[in-house]
Amino acid sequence: MTKGLKQRILEKVAPDLKKVEIALDHHLNPNVELVRQIASHLLFSGGKRLRPLLMIHSARLCGYNKGFEIKFSTIFEYLHAATLLHDDVVDEADIRRGKKVAHTKWSASKVVLTGDFLLALALDIAAKTREPDIISVIAKITRDMSQGEIDQLAKKGKLDLSEEEYLEVIERKTAVLIQGACQSGAILAKAQKEKEAALKQYGFHLGMAFQMADDLLDYIASAEELGKNPGADIREGKLTLPLIHSLVNASSEDKTWMQDVISETEFDPDQFEKLKEKLYTYKGIEYTRKRARDHVKRAKVCLDGFGDCQSKQLLCLIADYSIERKV
Amino acid sequence: MTKGLKQRILEKVAPDLKKVEIALDHHLNPNVELVRQIASHLLFSGGKRLRPLLMIHSARLCGYNKGFEIKFSTIFEYLHAATLLHDDVVDEADIRRGKKVAHTKWSASKVVLTGDFLLALALDIAAKTREPDIISVIAKITRDMSQGEIDQLAKKGKLDLSEEEYLEVIERKTAVLIQGACQSGAILAKAQKEKEAALKQYGFHLGMAFQMADDLLDYIASAEELGKNPGADIREGKLTLPLIHSLVNASSEDKTWMQDVISETEFDPDQFEKLKEKLYTYKGIEYTRKRARDHVKRAKVCLDGFGDCQSKQLLCLIADYSIERKV
Repeated sequence: MTKGLKQRILEKVAPDLKKVEIALDHHLNPNVELVRQIASHLLFSGGKRLRPLLMIHSARLCGYNKGFEIKFSTIFEYLHAATLLHDDVVDEADIRRGKKVAHTKWSASKVVLTGDFLLALALDIAAKTREPDIISVIAKITRDMSQGEIDQLAKKGKLDLSEEEYLEVIERKTAVLIQGACQSGAILAKAQKEKEAALKQYGFHLGMAFQMADDLLDYIASAEELGKNPGADIREGKLTLPLIHSLVNASSEDKTWMQDVISETEFDPDQFEKLKEKLYTYKGIEYTRKRARDHVKRAKVCLDGFGDCQSKQLLCLIADYSIERKV
Repeated sequence: MTKGLKQRILEKVAPDLKKVEIALDHHLNPNVELVRQIASHLLFSGGKRLRPLLMIHSARLCGYNKGFEIKFSTIFEYLHAATLLHDDVVDEADIRRGKKVAHTKWSASKVVLTGDFLLALALDIAAKTREPDIISVIAKITRDMSQGEIDQLAKKGKLDLSEEEYLEVIERKTAVLIQGACQSGAILAKAQKEKEAALKQYGFHLGMAFQMADDLLDYIASAEELGKNPGADIREGKLTLPLIHSLVNASSEDKTWMQDVISETEFDPDQFEKLKEKLYTYKGIEYTRKRARDHVKRAKVCLDGFGDCQSKQLLCLIADYSIERKV
């Protein structure tokens, strides 16, 4: 079923995707060869281009027909890449604390500066929309994401992270950018304020569902499906909803055991398997899945006010896919 | 004489400076306390607020009278602070290579993210100007500076750096931001294109003079005057104009000796004193001073087309001060 959904989405977006790839390559034009290398390494390593697609179809859903939606959609892929590069440095900081294996090819400083370059590129294209409101959206995204990351760093390893704190973290980390892409599509199309608000809300719920699904996958997917080892979150000291909810429901004995497992500096695959069982027993998996499905449902409700069209169908499919996907 | 110049400038700018300080504090309003701490640490450590002052007076020189120049001028101080924070990480990278002593209070990741936050703040205020051209200027600044820093990193320790390469480095590192502040003042005032171009050019020459004077100070000022040890540039493997010009003129024997001194991993104060003598002998000091003075002269010529007023007088004084200052 999932493959069917993915296939249906890919068929619908294939022609646009090709144009997005060309535009991403076209606008990436640094004077310094090293910048091109570092930026390309991340940008052209097989991303799904979710954020550009969301902007494109939000704009079209609001009747945009000036023909620049592909060009402007690159803003959100460059922005996404810039934040990933700066996150890499956050991860590298962890490496220095001996918790993770180094896997970057370049020094932290070069990675940071390439992130700045991509942010500048996003800005430059955003300025060409001549829409100051899109700039404000980008400023809000950058502000929320940077504060969210610092907040998450400060909360790393916090064993009593509440569901509320978790929701705040994932909103800033993921939802804000996805929301911004959808909202900017509406602004570009000069949509009515209610339509802009509806698409912004759609993006928020989609982003929340997306991150919850991601956090679930870290516990339920196999290493093969993930393309990396599962358990990355607890290795990094990140408590996510499946665990947070289970800790609340656990017997005091199991709670202590689980907290001990999370606090271990060495990752033990056997312990991890036992921990996963507890997440089923105490319904953390079930609860997270339910919350993610709620967000998908609410995302789709936000589209009710729009007439049926290709873009609406696609945005609905993407919402469904956000929690069905395996990677 | 220098003190007199500084005093005259300070008297003229005092009332604005107070308002700039208040605005900087007012707009800095993060949700995360740690972000405030890191950002404040840098922002309120006694900066000269050169860039805000340049934007304010460029705007007034072009007849701007809407009353928002103080608010908008903070854009360029936040932007300056953001780039300094990201440069810190570049410096920290060096520490890891064992060349420098650590002096930062926070991890690289937190510093990077706070830089992102300040950049977002600058953007948000810039969006409120409703002038997409100001956003383009900011994008260009960020792009040039990030590429310039990477380029400089790549050229670190290059013993045959040419004057042309040096000029490119300092343009991106310093002139582009000062130029952007002046140009943005003109855009804010909706000045004619020629006036905008003249102020942009003024900012370019001022920035070049400013950086050359800075590079000179590293060789001619005392530790007391600098507030830090001289010789920072060669410690970091940065060849600047006094040295570049002297290397070109030096006898082959002296050239080899000088290159050996620069390549030393250990800094030797006695060797440094001897190196300074060579910079006088081979006229690197004299040449750099002359080039900086040329830029000051050309900066002032750019103001010829403007009628005499307080702001014009101030911009002329700042140009003179750029090479007379001791810190």
